Amino acid sequence: MGTTMSPVPGPTPNAALTFTAEQQLDDGVLERRFVLDGVRGVLWTPATATPSRPAPLILLGQPGGLGLDRMYPRLAGRARHAARDGIASATLETPGSGERSPLPGADRARADLRGALASGRPVPDDVVDRLVLPLVDRSVPEWRSALDALLALPDVGGPVGFSGGVIAVGVRLAVVEPRVVAAGLFAGSYVPRSTFEEARRVTVPVHVLLQWDDEGNDRQAALALFDAFGSSEKTLQANLGGHTGVPAFAGQDAARFFARHLRRPSPGAAPTGG
Amino acid sequence: MGTTMSPVPGPTPNAALTFTAEQQLDDGVLERRFVLDGVRGVLWTPATATPSRPAPLILLGQPGGLGLDRMYPRLAGRARHAARDGIASATLETPGSGERSPLPGADRARADLRGALASGRPVPDDVVDRLVLPLVDRSVPEWRSALDALLALPDVGGPVGFSGGVIAVGVRLAVVEPRVVAAGLFAGSYVPRSTFEEARRVTVPVHVLLQWDDEGNDRQAALALFDAFGSSEKTLQANLGGHTGVPAFAGQDAARFFARHLRRPSPGAAPTGG
Repeated sequence: MGTTMSPVPGPTPNAALTFTAEQQLDDGVLERRFVLDGVRGVLWTPATATPSRPAPLILLGQPGGLGLDRMYPRLAGRARHAARDGIASATLETPGSGERSPLPGADRARADLRGALASGRPVPDDVVDRLVLPLVDRSVPEWRSALDALLALPDVGGPVGFSGGVIAVGVRLAVVEPRVVAAGLFAGSYVPRSTFEEARRVTVPVHVLLQWDDEGNDRQAALALFDAFGSSEKTLQANLGGHTGVPAFAGQDAARFFARHLRRPSPGAAPTGG
Repeated sequence: MGTTMSPVPGPTPNAALTFTAEQQLDDGVLERRFVLDGVRGVLWTPATATPSRPAPLILLGQPGGLGLDRMYPRLAGRARHAARDGIASATLETPGSGERSPLPGADRARADLRGALASGRPVPDDVVDRLVLPLVDRSVPEWRSALDALLALPDVGGPVGFSGGVIAVGVRLAVVEPRVVAAGLFAGSYVPRSTFEEARRVTVPVHVLLQWDDEGNDRQAALALFDAFGSSEKTLQANLGGHTGVPAFAGQDAARFFARHLRRPSPGAAPTGG
């Protein structure tokens, strides 16, 4: 896949963002590892991105728990797909995951979740809140700082989309961050009560993926959340299968959603793909 | 759009199918009007369809009530889109619609439906049955006869998909007709109880479009029907909007569903589109 991996010395565009390594992938995508305020991340930019034509950007959310290294292959695959549409992608390691320190109260919340699941009772609202809201509260400001830093790069511009990860994070970010103009969400994690209220305030186009038989997900909650979005364009795509069984064509449909909303017409060139 | 419209004399491939007019559209699509056992229909074949390379076929269902002439512009648009993927399309006027004689009991069933809707009560099951099942019972054998006739043409082959129209017709046809290998259904009409049972016996890939705010459709029934399909590949795509507000991108996604399942790889050529 990649050809070279070398440390990148020299200045970075602002104090908080430090590039630590870069490699040119065989499809022309430039992959740069970075650290932003102590958080590890990756930026992928298409060969078409230049200072005179900066690329739109997709923020690739990550689920809680797995960490950047385990998520890397899937994220890189999605980033390279987006690059074919001329779109850059970036990800940040999720708070409390991978190499990051645990979130306060997370162990207790997970133990309470296991207890509720073992008992066969519905998961109590306060357990969901304690499990998800600290992650939302920590993640959203990090994504906003990342946007400040990434959009200051010469080859990255807007518009910006948010894709995947923890759905409550995507909802909050879509509400508070005006630079996010499209949200592709995965209904595969617990939804705090407050997220339903926040969803009513989302106005950007939304594309929600739902795995119909997701063993760890509440289908009715996902349908209710979709119903709550205030957006004038919203699409729910439900596919047969469990949490990790998203079919390839669903990933392609999500990529087309972002291409439709983020890609700017090329001056004097026919649009590619889709 | 079209250039010429002329009667077509001469023999037709079997006794039941008579071509009545044909025109070459400006994108190379050949549009042929026909009558099959007294029922009017239209066949659209792409320029790429030849006897050595017959085109796959999509059967374009029609809703009840409107008739071929009112449906023509939408159907022709979808047929021309499919032709870009090398796929032929054909439609038949729905029993009881347009120029066709009313189905027995239809006036009474529609009056009962209006009464139920006016009263604000749920529509009784027997009203749905009397409204929809006669249409299913009449339509499905007609589609099967049409397949016999159309697949006998030199430039039309399989595989075959069914698209749109009355969802109970599509479900029945997918169960009983082995030549139908993919069904793109529109959840926009009443669903008889027996259709839920039939859906469990559907095994071909299914792509269901649902308009989330369809004023004349029961969202919960649509979700339950999707849940019932026995297919190992099934996708529900729900979009914001009313019955007639299917967004253009949803039509494109449905077209890609058919291209994925019907299009055969071109010998020595890269696949087009998608």
